[in-house]
Amino acid sequence: MVGMAVLGCGRIGRMHARNLARHSRAKLLMVFDVRAEAAQQTATELGVKIARSVDEVLSAGEVGGVLVATPTDTHVPLIAAAVRAGKAVLCEKPVDLDLERARACWSEIAGSKPRVMIGFNRRFDPSFRALRERLQRGEIGTLELAVITSRDPAPPPQTYIKTSGGLMRDMTIHDFDMARYLAGDIAQVHAFGANLVDPAIGKLGDIDTCSVSLRTKSGALIQINNSRRCVYGYDQRIEAFGSNGMLQAGNQYATTVESWSAERTGAREPLLSFFIERYREAYTSETDAFVSSLEGGRPMSPDFADGLAALRLAVAAEESLRTGAVVGLD
Amino acid sequence: MVGMAVLGCGRIGRMHARNLARHSRAKLLMVFDVRAEAAQQTATELGVKIARSVDEVLSAGEVGGVLVATPTDTHVPLIAAAVRAGKAVLCEKPVDLDLERARACWSEIAGSKPRVMIGFNRRFDPSFRALRERLQRGEIGTLELAVITSRDPAPPPQTYIKTSGGLMRDMTIHDFDMARYLAGDIAQVHAFGANLVDPAIGKLGDIDTCSVSLRTKSGALIQINNSRRCVYGYDQRIEAFGSNGMLQAGNQYATTVESWSAERTGAREPLLSFFIERYREAYTSETDAFVSSLEGGRPMSPDFADGLAALRLAVAAEESLRTGAVVGLD
Amino acid sequence: MVGMAVLGCGRIGRMHARNLARHSRAKLLMVFDVRAEAAQQTATELGVKIARSVDEVLSAGEVGGVLVATPTDTHVPLIAAAVRAGKAVLCEKPVDLDLERARACWSEIAGSKPRVMIGFNRRFDPSFRALRERLQRGEIGTLELAVITSRDPAPPPQTYIKTSGGLMRDMTIHDFDMARYLAGDIAQVHAFGANLVDPAIGKLGDIDTCSVSLRTKSGALIQINNSRRCVYGYDQRIEAFGSNGMLQAGNQYATTVESWSAERTGAREPLLSFFIERYREAYTSETDAFVSSLEGGRPMSPDFADGLAALRLAVAAEESLRTGAVVGLD
Amino acid sequence: MVGMAVLGCGRIGRMHARNLARHSRAKLLMVFDVRAEAAQQTATELGVKIARSVDEVLSAGEVGGVLVATPTDTHVPLIAAAVRAGKAVLCEKPVDLDLERARACWSEIAGSKPRVMIGFNRRFDPSFRALRERLQRGEIGTLELAVITSRDPAPPPQTYIKTSGGLMRDMTIHDFDMARYLAGDIAQVHAFGANLVDPAIGKLGDIDTCSVSLRTKSGALIQINNSRRCVYGYDQRIEAFGSNGMLQAGNQYATTVESWSAERTGAREPLLSFFIERYREAYTSETDAFVSSLEGGRPMSPDFADGLAALRLAVAAEESLRTGAVVGLD
Repeated sequence: MVGMAVLGCGRIGRMHARNLARHSRAKLLMVFDVRAEAAQQTATELGVKIARSVDEVLSAGEVGGVLVATPTDTHVPLIAAAVRAGKAVLCEKPVDLDLERARACWSEIAGSKPRVMIGFNRRFDPSFRALRERLQRGEIGTLELAVITSRDPAPPPQTYIKTSGGLMRDMTIHDFDMARYLAGDIAQVHAFGANLVDPAIGKLGDIDTCSVSLRTKSGALIQINNSRRCVYGYDQRIEAFGSNGMLQAGNQYATTVESWSAERTGAREPLLSFFIERYREAYTSETDAFVSSLEGGRPMSPDFADGLAALRLAVAAEESLRTGAVVGLD
Repeated sequence: MVGMAVLGCGRIGRMHARNLARHSRAKLLMVFDVRAEAAQQTATELGVKIARSVDEVLSAGEVGGVLVATPTDTHVPLIAAAVRAGKAVLCEKPVDLDLERARACWSEIAGSKPRVMIGFNRRFDPSFRALRERLQRGEIGTLELAVITSRDPAPPPQTYIKTSGGLMRDMTIHDFDMARYLAGDIAQVHAFGANLVDPAIGKLGDIDTCSVSLRTKSGALIQINNSRRCVYGYDQRIEAFGSNGMLQAGNQYATTVESWSAERTGAREPLLSFFIERYREAYTSETDAFVSSLEGGRPMSPDFADGLAALRLAVAAEESLRTGAVVGLD
Repeated sequence: MVGMAVLGCGRIGRMHARNLARHSRAKLLMVFDVRAEAAQQTATELGVKIARSVDEVLSAGEVGGVLVATPTDTHVPLIAAAVRAGKAVLCEKPVDLDLERARACWSEIAGSKPRVMIGFNRRFDPSFRALRERLQRGEIGTLELAVITSRDPAPPPQTYIKTSGGLMRDMTIHDFDMARYLAGDIAQVHAFGANLVDPAIGKLGDIDTCSVSLRTKSGALIQINNSRRCVYGYDQRIEAFGSNGMLQAGNQYATTVESWSAERTGAREPLLSFFIERYREAYTSETDAFVSSLEGGRPMSPDFADGLAALRLAVAAEESLRTGAVVGLD
Repeated sequence: MVGMAVLGCGRIGRMHARNLARHSRAKLLMVFDVRAEAAQQTATELGVKIARSVDEVLSAGEVGGVLVATPTDTHVPLIAAAVRAGKAVLCEKPVDLDLERARACWSEIAGSKPRVMIGFNRRFDPSFRALRERLQRGEIGTLELAVITSRDPAPPPQTYIKTSGGLMRDMTIHDFDMARYLAGDIAQVHAFGANLVDPAIGKLGDIDTCSVSLRTKSGALIQINNSRRCVYGYDQRIEAFGSNGMLQAGNQYATTVESWSAERTGAREPLLSFFIERYREAYTSETDAFVSSLEGGRPMSPDFADGLAALRLAVAAEESLRTGAVVGLD
């Protein structure tokens, strides 16, 4: 039984807290949020204690692991503090919006063999995971080309955009991680971006649509396409093409119902939106992987280095957006 | 090169005439229709001769095969006359609406080893044909159960219904033949019928919707469902379930386009309607099979006996509709 | 909060117990099984009390509802006893294998307005439920024809077959209920049965494959097809065809992965098997519907009368199997 | 009736000749090929005359249109000669491998309002055409992003690669044209290329796999992915994503058969290969569009300028391959 605490009781923190509360080999001991009511609501719902401070959490001996779901700019200090306190950490993505700050954190903690897992939830989607396993078993030979489609149902509010770090660090970062998950390290990046969805996003200096091309160190090519708006739901697909075939993993629906009428045939409902619904099983598996790794003393994956690598790709893609040139990663 | 004549220049006769005119190993020599303008139109379009009478066709030495696409009640006398004249015949289904009349024709001609093919076009559909070949190769083991779905886009006019012979002899007869094509001889029939589409059809004593169950001599069960109206197009499907798997063959579309919107996803256009469009390739292959059999001296298939067998099933199904009981075929 | 007890801790009882233990508005208080170890295992897993007898359960004031997952022949006495004790009951299907015995139970309890729900889990499948709701909203006009496909992955052991009551009362009963759920009361039944899967089943006087046709009181026709063996998984589909369109609800998969190779394209994995996996969401919703009805004082659905009606259809279908004739239900 | 001649009786020339011979409003008058046997074979098959020289074709008064299916390096002189002789031309893609040579041809003929159509057959595919029409009718709002997938079944022989002009001018050129067909003029190009399929192709200085990104003048982003090898057939798809939805157009199959087994479900056969089979309807429609434009005196589309524009994109993409930078088109 792994004693757990959750820091941050916003929408995603509460979801993680519920998953931990239901987990058969974890025990959710306490939650914390700087907003007292948020902590209260989650604590009441799940019948757990409210910690009065981060320190209380980190000094609690029965707490073996800390789930960090606080605002992004607190990730790095909380990870560092938790690692110093000897806790394992499951931290939401991204590690940080600032590559140097993230690297500094890593320099500080790397020596202590920290047990840090970064919440790239899509790695735990049953379909994406199965696709990767079949790919690694050689079912389609050598991977030559992949297409990652990732489109959000609707753009977030301007207040979110302002502190998001921009499309690459906020949204595409998931796809950079997926590219690495499928195909290993990346050698080169090129990105085209556009502001097509909402002019307000453009006014904030951000983009809402992109086409990114990657070349992996193994030689494969990867295409990522993103949009901040997708009227038919949360579109999340992967196509992996290899020397001996192709694998695709697709979208999730609430039902299997198809309809036929005088106007159209085989029509299904819109896709499951949004991430908490679409990746419900993925979040459950992610928590379970963390608990299992912690219990079994096995390495965490994806780890802090994976979080850094994805951020580094986002920064490189931004440089490509500015210069129009391919950016190499050594 | 096989010299051919077409009797009957209605919609389906004209289609056959075009297919023969385009065929590389057939030569369409003449057409005949009691309605002079119909014959004229087809003859002009295809640049062939108009025969003034059936006799002229049947006495023409260069005519090796006759395609009969005249009204159903003329099929039997035309087949008999053509066979007497030494011609091969490709006759549209059904052989006749009257089982005794059809049997009498068979008694008359059977001795002369007639070369008669009946136009059960669906046997030549590339998908149904492929399904059957894979079934016969044992891909799904022993056939245990099949579902044949056959729904017309819209009910025919009352004038057609009146002389159609009723749903079983006019429409379900195709499915009876398909059942035999897939699974061999039939041992038992049960039929439920209903008048749900158009009250006028009921007033004529006919039905427009049915559920038919068959038991084959080999022991498999077959379900047929028909409707005279299907708003999303001409619905023509087969599902064959066996001890080792399942095969399905489905509908045809004009394009592969699918659409995604805020209301629905993966929607395709309505199905191809009607039989001339849906079974375009089937009709071409049917003609080709006839020409090839004629050229090669090989047996015709489906032959007159197949036409008789399907009609016999239609008659048995009608008895089941009346009595509510299973009707056995010896 | 609804206090619950579970009678019967076999595979399905344990699943229900888990669902109740997780339910936010139910409290699982105790479990009972005549096999002490089975009760022990479930009680330990879920941290609940073991009742020493049915009486202890039924006399416990804090128990508001009883879930009956015991062998079929105990359903009727347990329902009656629970109703007499003033408890609500959620009883697994079938009510009983004997129609007279089930009717007698009903005569005994009907007067006391019993709160009894029968576990026809498929009514709670999200896709089948959505199909029915859309049907009832008139999306496809009037229902004219339905096809219910229901094929088990593999035949049960002979010991199960012996006490199962036969295909109609054990397996097809689900489809009879589904037919009623979709289309209301049934007027006529015809059934063809066959022993194609396992000769041992035939030796026990049972069948393993069937084609059943129903005519509803509203005039629609329904086709049911069943097999005790389906090598590609648990095949559970509904097709509803109406005057204005068609709705289909289909199978469940563990992932969305499709594969393309030199041999085949678009291939998916086998279907989810067996009922506990395939109907996972349905079982959760069923429990939730029971708890909600109990809490809200609303009528249970499906109720005892629905259980009786499905059993009556099974008995009628058996008569049709014997006589070959259509059997009417008044 | 349009009198036609075919220059070049290789595989694709012969296909065009057959389509013209079957066309109801065209009359194939003569064919020419420098290889006498090739001309002979086609002439015999279709019952048309063999021209002894290009001059004989171009001076024949009854020839209104010339179909050019000769080797690429003869396209420009034949187009120029045919235009000078007052003939309309349907010329296979590409216009030429050399952009300057193609521009020079255009300078020479542009003044005479030449009637030249370039054989970008994919524009005539019923599904791609329907997708574009629906896009232009505004069904998905403004186009924001498109993904064009184009993978050949197997790499051509080295002898072909040597004179092909390289992947961009030989294969991707179709996708450049498709991008323009869907989304209008292109502003920027970026390309990644790789030699993953066959080392022999790399030794010839060519690539066999690519990921190309385009930005259109209207602001949309387009991703193209190509491979010279695709084991599951000729993979040809378009996905168009807009502000109000998505449209996809997909692959063609010989049959609709799907199979279910213990290993996999819903499996179809490999895709139709190769272009003559996959684009059969497209080639027929292309010929028909040419004949109709010629008869009706309407502008040809796609025209010489479209051929030039696609070639210019290929050249720009090659520059991007070399430099790693985005290449702008003024």
